[in-house]
Amino acid sequence: MSKTLKDCRALDAQDPLRALRHQFSLPEGVIYLDGNSLGALPKTTAARVAEAVTHEWGQGLIRSWNSAGWFDMPQRLGNKIAQLIGAAPGEVVATDSTSINLYKVLSAALHMAAEDAPTRKVLISERSNFPTDLYIAEGLCRQRGLRLVLVEPEDLADALTADVAVLMLTHVNYRTGAMHNMKSVTAAAHNAGILTVWDLAHSAGAVPVDLNGARADFSVGCGYKYLNGGPGAPAFVWVNPKHADRFWQPLSGWWGHAVPFEFTPDYRPAPGITRYLCGTQPILSMVALECGLDTVLAAQPMGGTAALRRKSLALTDLFIELVETHCSGHGLGLATPRDHAQRGSQVCLTRQTGAYAIVQALIARGVIGDFRSGDSSTFRQAQDGPCSGKTGMPDILRFGFTPLYIGFEDIWNAVEHLKQVLETAEWKKPEFNQKNAVT
Amino acid sequence: MSKTLKDCRALDAQDPLRALRHQFSLPEGVIYLDGNSLGALPKTTAARVAEAVTHEWGQGLIRSWNSAGWFDMPQRLGNKIAQLIGAAPGEVVATDSTSINLYKVLSAALHMAAEDAPTRKVLISERSNFPTDLYIAEGLCRQRGLRLVLVEPEDLADALTADVAVLMLTHVNYRTGAMHNMKSVTAAAHNAGILTVWDLAHSAGAVPVDLNGARADFSVGCGYKYLNGGPGAPAFVWVNPKHADRFWQPLSGWWGHAVPFEFTPDYRPAPGITRYLCGTQPILSMVALECGLDTVLAAQPMGGTAALRRKSLALTDLFIELVETHCSGHGLGLATPRDHAQRGSQVCLTRQTGAYAIVQALIARGVIGDFRSGDSSTFRQAQDGPCSGKTGMPDILRFGFTPLYIGFEDIWNAVEHLKQVLETAEWKKPEFNQKNAVT
Repeated sequence: MSKTLKDCRALDAQDPLRALRHQFSLPEGVIYLDGNSLGALPKTTAARVAEAVTHEWGQGLIRSWNSAGWFDMPQRLGNKIAQLIGAAPGEVVATDSTSINLYKVLSAALHMAAEDAPTRKVLISERSNFPTDLYIAEGLCRQRGLRLVLVEPEDLADALTADVAVLMLTHVNYRTGAMHNMKSVTAAAHNAGILTVWDLAHSAGAVPVDLNGARADFSVGCGYKYLNGGPGAPAFVWVNPKHADRFWQPLSGWWGHAVPFEFTPDYRPAPGITRYLCGTQPILSMVALECGLDTVLAAQPMGGTAALRRKSLALTDLFIELVETHCSGHGLGLATPRDHAQRGSQVCLTRQTGAYAIVQALIARGVIGDFRSGDSSTFRQAQDGPCSGKTGMPDILRFGFTPLYIGFEDIWNAVEHLKQVLETAEWKKPEFNQKNAVT
Repeated sequence: MSKTLKDCRALDAQDPLRALRHQFSLPEGVIYLDGNSLGALPKTTAARVAEAVTHEWGQGLIRSWNSAGWFDMPQRLGNKIAQLIGAAPGEVVATDSTSINLYKVLSAALHMAAEDAPTRKVLISERSNFPTDLYIAEGLCRQRGLRLVLVEPEDLADALTADVAVLMLTHVNYRTGAMHNMKSVTAAAHNAGILTVWDLAHSAGAVPVDLNGARADFSVGCGYKYLNGGPGAPAFVWVNPKHADRFWQPLSGWWGHAVPFEFTPDYRPAPGITRYLCGTQPILSMVALECGLDTVLAAQPMGGTAALRRKSLALTDLFIELVETHCSGHGLGLATPRDHAQRGSQVCLTRQTGAYAIVQALIARGVIGDFRSGDSSTFRQAQDGPCSGKTGMPDILRFGFTPLYIGFEDIWNAVEHLKQVLETAEWKKPEFNQKNAVT
């Protein structure tokens, strides 16, 4: 028998992570299932950012680069992130955007491959990888005369051929919530002589990640999704220590210099991951990111990412179960794998029509998820583009579950709203059928 | 006869821009002559950032990308910056760091040159250009097999030879405060078939800039110096509209895509300057930047950059005059040109020894300037580096004058402190002779 509201309340009562929800300021009447797009606001952030503005900047002025520790922030925040992704202290820096960091590591990976295996001329990725990752890859392939080949996940194993230099994947797919096995995919790539670049945008803070355990080569990730760093928070970058000193990444700015305050006219890269820094970082956004990281690290005494993962799977299991029992007959499909080992911290539903309007009707009721178009996958072959790929995916209703602040009763209520939106055909109202730019 | 304290007070009383000082929160007892390194805090910033944190992020969550106008910020802020640098609306975006933006435009300039004049294999810059600019240039030259040639300013005209592809200059030199004539240098470069890239880090908001009037090709600049955008505030980028659509810059992220929300797997650059955007921007730091821009735009009804310039020259003239009359016999030299046409908004003094300690002693008295080492110019020829250049510059005591918040009596008091530090040999105390990382 399917779970009841009472069951959901009992699950909340037993939830060892329940208290972590009080770290966040969430709007009244909102069930926020879009923390995979922009994480919620930690309660500490407003005061901490105000202190950075008023005291550190306003009073300390230029002196705060030292006295307020601004200059060490990329490394200090990087060390906090390291704890969430299976990296060691000194291996991660928080800096720039995910796209910029991807450019750095992909440049390094392609450069290494060009030195070690110059006949390998292909960069492999997943066709439904996050578009900005593909854009950066496309640009680098164009620059270097390589070919970007996009494959479906089921074709990945066969695609690891002798002409492939680098495999670039997002660990958890942004559209479907499907998760790769980082360890086995990395091992398969290495067996085929291929370097790996992992984007952890939808993983860090949500699912266990063990970069060193998987022997991954390069990785980047996002600060404003499950890490709750605030809109556009700086991203992060990790490089396997065995590669970190090898390549001078092309965005060679002052903050990545070995002796940045000697102001020498020639560039000498800092040792290790510090050379993946470039220009001056947005300190106020870094301050907010640190507050977000602390909300995730607060789970460490309660079991850390393993405990977060257990709860996340319980939440997504419950959501799938309730949607299938309460909303059947309304044309919804499931894009997210049922197999726990292949599931991130989100559930994506498919529907042939009306997905956008249903999401809008839910948002109007305070249940915030988002819509991802299937049209996008109608691949437009650029006349001069280096890509290749296949077509066809349905529209998606996407729901992210941040175990830090989503509870089991929230799931019950969200599905109840979805049921009502579908049963009453509320979503057919004109106001839910006009597209805005962003959701 | 040299000016008196009474004269300085009279100048303040007559200053038509005097009221603009009240836009800023400055610490009690501080004379802040380092706004060319980090601008002061506008009074509006704390509340505006708090609103962005608490209301826009906390309550609006993901919806604020539209409802709070986050998505339009790079262009909206860009249009404000455009008014300060002789650019038209739609020609500037605020984004990323100066170093990252320089990589974008320098890539574009070198790409254009490679297409139009493939035999030109040299990038020229100034030996004492801001180091991060040289590092980015060095990296790109290395990537593209070009040669980076660094010259002294007096040798610039002779260096514009037929093998030069691009001339990259910082408009106002960070070490000396010397300012290039953008119009005549650009014309000379164009006459020699050379593209120009201008860094406005020490110009925007401080001296009049007319990019379109000078027919410049590419430009970048900094948000956290004279634009008062806060520590590490996003930078900006301008491309002459005649070049803007020509090249797909290599940092091709989602925000520079023609239709970013269609999530197509292939990259299609947006028209115009928008293609110079890459990844998601740090919104909290962008919000602070906008407050900073508004402090500069507040001068527009009072004569704008021309009025700021008049006051800036009066301030730097006064500082030079008072230092020369009150501090003579203490080994100070002047690195900044006396000629108004060649002077930015800072004054740099030289001293063979003790410059660092004198700056520290001044900071301890609340007079905040900064120190720039002459050691840096002992050029270390990287064994594998593409640079060439000459040696030798003295240590510098650097004082920046932001006409928005510095007054004439401040100058009097600053020089009085400098005189006392020198006359009492206060600067010889051990605590002023231990070097920190940043000043």
